[in-house]
Amino acid sequence: MAGRTARRRVLRISLPGGAEPRADLLAAEEPLGIRIGGQAVTLTMRTPGDDLDLVAGFLVSEGIIASAADITQMMICSGERCGHDHSGEEADLGNIADVTLADGVSVRAEQRRNFLTSSACGVCGKTSIAELTVSGAYDLTGDATRVTPEVLAGLPDALRAAQRVFDRTGGLHAAGLFTAGGDLLAAREDVGRHNAVDKIVGWALRSGRLPLAGSVLLVSGRASFELVQKAVLAGIPVLAAVSAPSSLAAELAAQTGLTLVGFLRGGSMNVYTGTERVAAPVLLR
Amino acid sequence: MAGRTARRRVLRISLPGGAEPRADLLAAEEPLGIRIGGQAVTLTMRTPGDDLDLVAGFLVSEGIIASAADITQMMICSGERCGHDHSGEEADLGNIADVTLADGVSVRAEQRRNFLTSSACGVCGKTSIAELTVSGAYDLTGDATRVTPEVLAGLPDALRAAQRVFDRTGGLHAAGLFTAGGDLLAAREDVGRHNAVDKIVGWALRSGRLPLAGSVLLVSGRASFELVQKAVLAGIPVLAAVSAPSSLAAELAAQTGLTLVGFLRGGSMNVYTGTERVAAPVLLR
Repeated sequence: MAGRTARRRVLRISLPGGAEPRADLLAAEEPLGIRIGGQAVTLTMRTPGDDLDLVAGFLVSEGIIASAADITQMMICSGERCGHDHSGEEADLGNIADVTLADGVSVRAEQRRNFLTSSACGVCGKTSIAELTVSGAYDLTGDATRVTPEVLAGLPDALRAAQRVFDRTGGLHAAGLFTAGGDLLAAREDVGRHNAVDKIVGWALRSGRLPLAGSVLLVSGRASFELVQKAVLAGIPVLAAVSAPSSLAAELAAQTGLTLVGFLRGGSMNVYTGTERVAAPVLLR
Repeated sequence: MAGRTARRRVLRISLPGGAEPRADLLAAEEPLGIRIGGQAVTLTMRTPGDDLDLVAGFLVSEGIIASAADITQMMICSGERCGHDHSGEEADLGNIADVTLADGVSVRAEQRRNFLTSSACGVCGKTSIAELTVSGAYDLTGDATRVTPEVLAGLPDALRAAQRVFDRTGGLHAAGLFTAGGDLLAAREDVGRHNAVDKIVGWALRSGRLPLAGSVLLVSGRASFELVQKAVLAGIPVLAAVSAPSSLAAELAAQTGLTLVGFLRGGSMNVYTGTERVAAPVLLR
């Protein structure tokens, strides 16, 4: 497995008049194939690192598993080092995650169809609009979490401080999980924004922390339908994004009782849904 | 079909001390199901608008079609207004694109598997790493296009000027197709960055402009493996991104002879591959 960054020669041009070759650091992007019981089920492009978290989070997001006990074994391997038949060609190009599910846990036919998707795109591979509906394991409406605007305003800086690669490549999305008091629980990065969230959810599953009641998830980019779906499936009551949400993200958040915050930057923010969790009673009068 | 934006009430908080309800404009995100000959093949989340371009570009990106003549008919419809059996439930939630391919054009088994993917994620649904390999219809290495750094530096402003929705919602990705002289040929927007490029490619196909030899494609965000793949499949020799490329994007660009430009902003840029097309001979000496 390669590292999280790759070095490359680049021609740097600065107008007017400057051009020089130099070395540049790029965010690593590599394919990861996911197999269950030796059968290839999907392939995702991801930044190497926290691969077991990514796979576990992907399985949660797809509704295949709900606790760490649902996985008997999980390993990252290349061809000959796995017990199953992998072609040498695939082992050369990337990595393979091999998952063995616990007895009684299986991939249902309709899940397998959904499964032809990726953590980079929560709805890819779903062939009917009805499949988009979230069947959340957790009820967010009962989550009495409160978070102040001051705490929310401090999260982007806290996430940036925790990022190990972003500042050097400018090419990675980040996701950070915080307590309602603003303490960082986990931070993950990936070229794919959905992968970064799956890595957080997988870490939580493997740490026995699901559902993530009382927590706040911050993402470095925009909030799409799919990110709202992942938050709801992990039991996270508050999702904040540095950039804009989409219309469907706000609709799904309203339906599921999620608090959705957007444009969280420079001490200001928009609260789209679930405003009761943003504790600013004085301001609101 | 809804519009490209949706209005929503939001609580705007500005620290210290400000909080007020107001209306906010969100980028519309809605599912679009794609059917070929009445059979559902995929579903993508997209911003409504230019849907026929999106579908045509998706078919090009998947290697199903190569010219406008490969499509007999294409329409956007909801349930009962199409000739095929669509459930009412799906028609309610979103839109359906119905495609009839020309005689002799069909979806091969391995394509159908790939097809369980989406324009938002070029590799989702591919189950083996070998499937990632590009089998490009066009040879970029023979494309003698030259573009000056000054022209490249002007493209982001030109694209922003052409964007109809971005400035109002902050939630859309954009893609712009330019001549090597910097003239805008087409601009498209979408919540999904890959969709924006598919809309460009589909527009080109439907205008009889494929392959797009001599052109420059600008994307508003990062350059991933998948965006490089889409450019190569459309015969575009120069891909420029406002943000960072990934390592695999640069590798694929090098392999296919694509000129890849990143961090194109404020009069400076990095040229990662194909530097011979960036005409700055004086600067380089």
